[in-house]
Amino acid sequence: MPIPVETFFLAPGAGGTLQQQIRAMIADGILAGRLRAGDKLPSSRRLADHLGVSRITVTLAYTELVAGDYLTALGRSGHFVSQTAPVRPGLRHPSSPRASAVDWTRRVVRDFSGHRIIGRPQDWRSHPYPFIYGQADPALFDHQNWRQCALQALGRRDFDALTEDYYERDDPMLIEYVLRALLPRRSIAAEPSEVLLTLGAQNALWLAAQVLLGPGRRAVTENPCYTGLRSILGQTGSDVTAVEVDEEGLPPDRVPDGADVVFVTPSHQSPTNATMPVDRRLALLERAARQDFLIVEDDYEFEMSFLKPAAPSLKSLDGEGRVIYVGSFSKSLFPGVRLGYIVAPEAFVREARALRGAVFRHPPGHVQRTVAYFLALGHYDAHVNRLHQAFRRRRVVMNEAIRDAGLTVAGRGAFGGSSFWMAAPEGVDTEDLAQTLRARGVLIEPGRQFFAPGREARNCYRLAYSSIAPGKIPEGIARIAEALAERRAGTE
Amino acid sequence: MPIPVETFFLAPGAGGTLQQQIRAMIADGILAGRLRAGDKLPSSRRLADHLGVSRITVTLAYTELVAGDYLTALGRSGHFVSQTAPVRPGLRHPSSPRASAVDWTRRVVRDFSGHRIIGRPQDWRSHPYPFIYGQADPALFDHQNWRQCALQALGRRDFDALTEDYYERDDPMLIEYVLRALLPRRSIAAEPSEVLLTLGAQNALWLAAQVLLGPGRRAVTENPCYTGLRSILGQTGSDVTAVEVDEEGLPPDRVPDGADVVFVTPSHQSPTNATMPVDRRLALLERAARQDFLIVEDDYEFEMSFLKPAAPSLKSLDGEGRVIYVGSFSKSLFPGVRLGYIVAPEAFVREARALRGAVFRHPPGHVQRTVAYFLALGHYDAHVNRLHQAFRRRRVVMNEAIRDAGLTVAGRGAFGGSSFWMAAPEGVDTEDLAQTLRARGVLIEPGRQFFAPGREARNCYRLAYSSIAPGKIPEGIARIAEALAERRAGTE
Repeated sequence: MPIPVETFFLAPGAGGTLQQQIRAMIADGILAGRLRAGDKLPSSRRLADHLGVSRITVTLAYTELVAGDYLTALGRSGHFVSQTAPVRPGLRHPSSPRASAVDWTRRVVRDFSGHRIIGRPQDWRSHPYPFIYGQADPALFDHQNWRQCALQALGRRDFDALTEDYYERDDPMLIEYVLRALLPRRSIAAEPSEVLLTLGAQNALWLAAQVLLGPGRRAVTENPCYTGLRSILGQTGSDVTAVEVDEEGLPPDRVPDGADVVFVTPSHQSPTNATMPVDRRLALLERAARQDFLIVEDDYEFEMSFLKPAAPSLKSLDGEGRVIYVGSFSKSLFPGVRLGYIVAPEAFVREARALRGAVFRHPPGHVQRTVAYFLALGHYDAHVNRLHQAFRRRRVVMNEAIRDAGLTVAGRGAFGGSSFWMAAPEGVDTEDLAQTLRARGVLIEPGRQFFAPGREARNCYRLAYSSIAPGKIPEGIARIAEALAERRAGTE
Repeated sequence: MPIPVETFFLAPGAGGTLQQQIRAMIADGILAGRLRAGDKLPSSRRLADHLGVSRITVTLAYTELVAGDYLTALGRSGHFVSQTAPVRPGLRHPSSPRASAVDWTRRVVRDFSGHRIIGRPQDWRSHPYPFIYGQADPALFDHQNWRQCALQALGRRDFDALTEDYYERDDPMLIEYVLRALLPRRSIAAEPSEVLLTLGAQNALWLAAQVLLGPGRRAVTENPCYTGLRSILGQTGSDVTAVEVDEEGLPPDRVPDGADVVFVTPSHQSPTNATMPVDRRLALLERAARQDFLIVEDDYEFEMSFLKPAAPSLKSLDGEGRVIYVGSFSKSLFPGVRLGYIVAPEAFVREARALRGAVFRHPPGHVQRTVAYFLALGHYDAHVNRLHQAFRRRRVVMNEAIRDAGLTVAGRGAFGGSSFWMAAPEGVDTEDLAQTLRARGVLIEPGRQFFAPGREARNCYRLAYSSIAPGKIPEGIARIAEALAERRAGTE
């Protein structure tokens, strides 16, 4: 790599002659590992101009560095960092002190890293049996058409959409397609002023929580629930009550008095996959009206309703404007796209939009426009259809393998989805189980992380089929059964 | 039912090729329920005649719709809407109630929209003399190589970088290039654990403020300062003190006792363009050590140092680990890319990373990888060089035009930059002036928005030359002078 001339500075107040300073500057860079073997130095003329010194000063410094085997001179090609240059691994630039004079524990206003989201192993693709949730499967993605749409969005006609600082606005083309092509599938009609694009559902939930919650306010979640939501609510300083779900999701009559905002996942309860029946949806809305609370509806996976059409969204049944609806492209496209949306009354969207403006302005324009083309050209629907077919097949294989292995399903999802919620025998700690299985190439998601602290079911786990090849499912399930059998044998 | 050919029309001004438009038109009709399963499409010849396009265009669109399962081809009988075409569940009457039963003023915990960022007019490109700041100029952007890098980042080898949910991580390739190719230009050496990618400088400043500020803490800004920063700090609930800058930026001895975090723009003070000399930088660091405050250094425009090399960053002079450094690609690439970075001690980055994870996880992977390639292949340096040359030329034209018109420059920027800070005669309200000029095709940025409330200079304004063609500059400046002369004549 050619080293840009801008990277060289003479430290103010440094001692020695200019020639010595130049030599020290380059030698330090090599010793610290910033300049690496084979990197090309600027010509002596360029460096001299840049530093405001005479060319001969640089030439002499270079000559000395060649003599010390820091540099190699390759005739007319110039000077390069020598392949055998001295290195001092671990040495750092003096300007970046390891030991800070600052007491950071006192400086940081809240413990953000204590609430962190539990990620999946970074190397999940290297495991042959990854029953992990929420990552894209390259075998199912319509790579070619996505490229085509991205290319179109990179065209000169779309230069503004690509480069512009939109401030608080969104790409009008994507808003148009969300309104016309996505929301009608959930029977939701909305105006552009009632829609806000977000960086995924995580960001949508975060914005809703920030606008509506704080100390003295009361939030209600499902128990178990999406872990990302728990970390969001933990940072608001509000009271958080977790209400146990049953096989029909959140029971409306258990929503405590004084609730301000209730977070629900009616389509596929996360993580149990329970579907809330229409009666219960209406009962929840009625209770919201009576007790005057708001509802944040996370409809994160409605696109994966391949067994039968999804039940109507809470938002579509909401006659009072109490529901803040959250949708996402993470499941229907891929999570790395980081795009989702909020549909809510304009008074809410106005505040969320201003907050988003202060936090990061807007999702990158290119990503917005690419998704807009993908929707406009019909690729989105074809892609979702393809996912439906694949997931339907995988689910059949899962069902058979689970039955054959004698495992217990705790929640399947009436409409489809991409995972099963599983129950190991009482007494099994699935965090231990996950560790054992990981060493055998199988990734499962232990259940404890989804529960409110102190009210965990340690024997639950989640098995997703969205990222595992169908041919791998039977053996993966068999290995889980085997590990469970070993545990049973061990305790008997 | 045979669908009458008259129901089809191509929307005026629609994007994409004719074939794509036809496909979108039919897919939309099916999704919206206007075209139903079993409906017969017009023959390709009839539709082609009706739309005034070639028959092959319609045939190819039909073929793609068959592939996407929107249509079925039944031999010589023609094309029908497929029985398994994607459908939306029963369209409901707009259920989104206009009048909400909810009292949103009581629901929203803070007035976010009161602190909003003042954007520039959306239609700025339609004004012939846009002296507006911070937008990209299509004439200067290396569109072809950007496309090439984006395409490479869309390749199958980069599928993980594109689609993966990184959770709290960043693209290691981009981090590597930030460490090796960008930070050394500011004499900053750092470990990967000391760098965090953000959604632009706005997001970096927001994260720093959230981690370090809250009720009972004291923030210090420059006066005037970047408006986005004022809205960020306003939302933290901390005390904010604005300190008047002089022609060398923030005077360290005016930082009040009890300051927790000081926000500065030493390279090009925003918006006055003052450059802080090295002596003053050292004095500020000394005062930070003595009074135990932290410094957030917004180095937002260091790449635009085309007159002479930028002064060393505060971060590079910081022996105590007190400086949180903020960089951005908004000026060197384009603002719509929404990418910036923080360099700070690991203890700080850990908290900022956890917070970012809860707020939106990570910037989209595709954007990260595209920028990484743009850096890796040397296009970034070539692009910045091209900007330097163009801005240097424009600056000469600006200087001449301003001199000829007799306007007063209040701050020019010793190293370069992309704007002049201007002073109109005392008594001129530049918000009025901006309105007058806008009607005459000239966009300027009135100064009041940059100042702390109650301490505004109403006669200042900013003229940027980053988005205006050099040929337009003289006439634009002449029109400003003319409008000012009219005001003078009017008051005499």
